[in-house]
Amino acid sequence: MTAVASRAFVTGAAGFIGSHLVDRLLATGVAVTGWDNFSTGQELFLADALTHPAFTLVRGDTLDATALTAAMAGADLVVHLAANADIRDGWRHPGKDLQQNTVATFNVLEAMRAQGVRRIAFASTGSVYGEPAVSADRPTPETAPFPVQTSLYAASKLAGEGLVSAYAEGGHLDEAYVFRFVSLLGERYSHGHVFDFHRRLLADPHHLRVLGDGRQRKSYLYVHDCVDALLHVLAAHTARGAPHATQVYNLGTDHFIDVRTSVGLICRTLGVNPKIETTGGERGWIGDSPFIFLDTAKIRATGWQPRLTIEQALLRTVQWLDSNRWIYEKRQ
Amino acid sequence: MTAVASRAFVTGAAGFIGSHLVDRLLATGVAVTGWDNFSTGQELFLADALTHPAFTLVRGDTLDATALTAAMAGADLVVHLAANADIRDGWRHPGKDLQQNTVATFNVLEAMRAQGVRRIAFASTGSVYGEPAVSADRPTPETAPFPVQTSLYAASKLAGEGLVSAYAEGGHLDEAYVFRFVSLLGERYSHGHVFDFHRRLLADPHHLRVLGDGRQRKSYLYVHDCVDALLHVLAAHTARGAPHATQVYNLGTDHFIDVRTSVGLICRTLGVNPKIETTGGERGWIGDSPFIFLDTAKIRATGWQPRLTIEQALLRTVQWLDSNRWIYEKRQ
Repeated sequence: MTAVASRAFVTGAAGFIGSHLVDRLLATGVAVTGWDNFSTGQELFLADALTHPAFTLVRGDTLDATALTAAMAGADLVVHLAANADIRDGWRHPGKDLQQNTVATFNVLEAMRAQGVRRIAFASTGSVYGEPAVSADRPTPETAPFPVQTSLYAASKLAGEGLVSAYAEGGHLDEAYVFRFVSLLGERYSHGHVFDFHRRLLADPHHLRVLGDGRQRKSYLYVHDCVDALLHVLAAHTARGAPHATQVYNLGTDHFIDVRTSVGLICRTLGVNPKIETTGGERGWIGDSPFIFLDTAKIRATGWQPRLTIEQALLRTVQWLDSNRWIYEKRQ
Repeated sequence: MTAVASRAFVTGAAGFIGSHLVDRLLATGVAVTGWDNFSTGQELFLADALTHPAFTLVRGDTLDATALTAAMAGADLVVHLAANADIRDGWRHPGKDLQQNTVATFNVLEAMRAQGVRRIAFASTGSVYGEPAVSADRPTPETAPFPVQTSLYAASKLAGEGLVSAYAEGGHLDEAYVFRFVSLLGERYSHGHVFDFHRRLLADPHHLRVLGDGRQRKSYLYVHDCVDALLHVLAAHTARGAPHATQVYNLGTDHFIDVRTSVGLICRTLGVNPKIETTGGERGWIGDSPFIFLDTAKIRATGWQPRLTIEQALLRTVQWLDSNRWIYEKRQ
């Protein structure tokens, strides 16, 4: 694969996706500056990267615009992954998404402008589609009708997308990629419902409480497939020249599973058979979408395709969690 | 018309739209707290309102969350109009739109939550549609495909819309109305291209420079028609019960005119015949849309319709500017 940059600046470098991306960038000959405030990132995830001569780790917060700008010197690509990625707890601290996802993205874009970095990949979310009105709207394409936001998290990411495209259309970026992810699974997974289910089953294998009616249908993507997709898109455009405007790609698999099925898989993998209690209701929490399923025809048309099914990704996730229980100490 | 509230809290109360809205609210028996930082608002616009016993003016900045929350006490409706409404100069101060339009809207929503105010009308903009790909996308309906943002102003308003709908879907609002305006015209108009053209023709009636090729097609709405539409929607929903979710309405007329035609009208009204110099290009500035024309079928279906044509609104605007040249001293 073509090297996608000389030096990439990765925010959220010590996170679930970030740390895998850093490893892959280094492996393909790209120097990397990793940026993380370690609020949820894990230094252990960067254990390999930290032994690599082309890796520089900078500990910093994206809300510190001055430090961010200084750290970005010399980069020719920014991958902006750092975010508060918590839909469920949004209402417990309503300013957090706005600051960490919207204002922080503005800081990244301004730092890029100051440093003359003109290529960005921005991690957005399938949640920006809100809750499409009818099932016919799934799988949801990138051109879906203008959506109503259903969570502070998605609203803050939508705002980030708007900023990225305004900077691109304003002539301050040569390439801008917005990736709308489904939930990711895989090694280093450390936040989300599989994490919660696994942790609670370790504590009590006889009983599991599931938020909502358990029929929520969700799509997932294996983290290495996600990193592949990012690098694939960046390399394709690098090779054939920059696109005209902001490019938006959905990232996901062509399948979905319901929460009860994923709970069943986790239980089988762990060899437990708990009594399942569902709290009822279509949604597990405010802003939970009963059906997330993205149309990935656009990214598939570039030649990328995921290698793992949702079930395979789920299995690897549970296996990784099982062998890395230290993560439960770190993520309270 | 039914009174739409007991006490309305209007941000940007001393502005072009805000001051007209305040007058109309007071006339229909609604007590009003007007909030303005007078960065562009004019106390003269509130000359009538200030003599009304049910009007309270509070001088404050929406970025001062504490003062904002205190001032909102007792309101049962918020109309959030305060904004930095300057597409053209966005890149001269890139943080301004984010702060004054996005963060400020968050402050308004949090102040409402603190004070238990559960109805909001939010002034957004037709600019959030960016630049639809083909002419077939005009007139642009509320359900247009997910747009790419082309200016910091529109991106900041899109972010505001996202916040409003997240608060509504999160159960923190009973009624949320998002109005996407075309440009407005009428008495107290004090910002925009008619303002600029008129001012420059007063200074030099023999020569006028027009940004772009002058073929940009724009739709406009008379400010009183806009205020009518807001009150009409609020009253309709008050009468028949709150809508289920965020309601988005385009506001405009069913016509558009090109810049050269509006320049011609201004010149005829002033009795001048300048040499017109166009700077060329489809767009007058970065983020300028060559064709703005909104589909207003949804708001028309509620029974509202505009009373003035674009030409009539333009004429009144020029006449008002001609009799109120003091505004040029105030707005440098």
